[in-house]
Amino acid sequence: MTMTYFTEGQSVAEVLGRHGPNVDERLAEVFGSLVSHLHAFAKEVVLTESEWEVAISFLTRTGQLCSDQRQEFILLSDVLGLSMLVDAVNHRRPPGATDSTVFGPFHVDGAPVRAMGDDICLDGKGESCLFTGRVLDLAGEPVDGACVDVWSDNADGFYDVQQPDEQPRWNNRGRFLTGPDGRYEFRGIKPTSYPIPDDGPVGQLLGQLGRHPYRPAHVHFLVTAPNHQRLVTHTFVAGDPYLTSDSVFGVKESLVTEYERLDDQEVQWRCHFDFVLAPDDPGPEGALGA
Amino acid sequence: MTMTYFTEGQSVAEVLGRHGPNVDERLAEVFGSLVSHLHAFAKEVVLTESEWEVAISFLTRTGQLCSDQRQEFILLSDVLGLSMLVDAVNHRRPPGATDSTVFGPFHVDGAPVRAMGDDICLDGKGESCLFTGRVLDLAGEPVDGACVDVWSDNADGFYDVQQPDEQPRWNNRGRFLTGPDGRYEFRGIKPTSYPIPDDGPVGQLLGQLGRHPYRPAHVHFLVTAPNHQRLVTHTFVAGDPYLTSDSVFGVKESLVTEYERLDDQEVQWRCHFDFVLAPDDPGPEGALGA
Repeated sequence: MTMTYFTEGQSVAEVLGRHGPNVDERLAEVFGSLVSHLHAFAKEVVLTESEWEVAISFLTRTGQLCSDQRQEFILLSDVLGLSMLVDAVNHRRPPGATDSTVFGPFHVDGAPVRAMGDDICLDGKGESCLFTGRVLDLAGEPVDGACVDVWSDNADGFYDVQQPDEQPRWNNRGRFLTGPDGRYEFRGIKPTSYPIPDDGPVGQLLGQLGRHPYRPAHVHFLVTAPNHQRLVTHTFVAGDPYLTSDSVFGVKESLVTEYERLDDQEVQWRCHFDFVLAPDDPGPEGALGA
Repeated sequence: MTMTYFTEGQSVAEVLGRHGPNVDERLAEVFGSLVSHLHAFAKEVVLTESEWEVAISFLTRTGQLCSDQRQEFILLSDVLGLSMLVDAVNHRRPPGATDSTVFGPFHVDGAPVRAMGDDICLDGKGESCLFTGRVLDLAGEPVDGACVDVWSDNADGFYDVQQPDEQPRWNNRGRFLTGPDGRYEFRGIKPTSYPIPDDGPVGQLLGQLGRHPYRPAHVHFLVTAPNHQRLVTHTFVAGDPYLTSDSVFGVKESLVTEYERLDDQEVQWRCHFDFVLAPDDPGPEGALGA
């Protein structure tokens, strides 16, 4: 017989040899690499049948926990470092541009557009903080008409969407539109570190690996402007004990910011940060000219 | 600052460097290999953010489809060739022993123990077939007290558990206990090829890859006996058009069997197959002596 069957040695070729004639090229590339690496993994560790059963059960429970309120697979990707890796390989930014980091699951589209100086903390909890800075381009020029979309947890470590019955809607969220000087300014609170949801399969995995579920205190920003690349990032609080052990690996040194204590009864802290946007389409010419 | 943060180049070391002090050695080994290969995959293909979102959505839907009646993650493992690979790396059998193959999701514990010669086809559908053979050890001696547990789809391509309202309970299932001669004999039907469930994410993936969902016709066997390794296998029907394109890669050449047409009005086919069991604990000595 000249037929070929599946064998350990030929396993990848056998699976990839089955593709039909008109498979999307990129799908074939991604699927091919994935199958190669998954098979190499199973062979390398000689994955046992009971370990395979544990993996099937883990993935099943992870999927079954997903709902409109909870995305356990994103959490899994986060704690495996995959979310940050996808960020890293897709945002090799030009020197000088602000670094990006993970988007996270808690952004909400359509936050209220507020006036400069407004307070986004609506529940009265936490230590008040003045956030100031500018949106700049790579040449250091202010960006007019940029939108600074900010979101943060409250003083108890929860986003408003995690506590819809306890927090005012849009608590610690808002959008601010820059003028010709590129400046933004608003009040919020000095953020607090918090654990990612750890009552599911991903939390169990972290426990088995001896890892804690905490993220260092941070504020989320999504900064957009015409003719510039969208920037998804956080700023982190210098001195936070979890800076080098962020459960989702989101910290970059350039994003760690000093919080300055103010001698002011009403506003206790100040945090200054400039966002530097890369231009759209940073090709060989686009990155320099345009 | 001497702190280290996540970077593309150090991504694996950063994730694996987070383990606590008392992590199970085997977990660390399996997790380490998995993270290495997943990161290598994401870097190799430069996985885009939208592709990552497609993957998160795919895994989420796969998990959400799982229920007591449906195991979409096992199906995913099957079509990726992972199930057969796990079988392959765990059952490197001694020469002469019958090859194993995938267990599949349709076995049911506790099928009725029947008398030799009984008919397991209870719905009257399909072409009747006499199944005969022996259970042997590596020396060719008959195995006394072996249990031959058989299950098969019906003539329409469905297992009884897939059609609980349409098929009699235990249709095309049964257990047969060998005597001192190691022989088994029962009636069933010549099996038919059938598609794996393809109305979910896994079926969509097969479609995008240009692959069909069919399995070549086969009969499942679970053969157990004291002092011998449990054997999970199928026998396949020689000449089936899907033998070299089994959607789950389960076919091995040694398991393809001839069905002999009989000149008999009541029983149209005969299939003869001997199961050769490996001894328990086939260590350097166990495999030879004991």
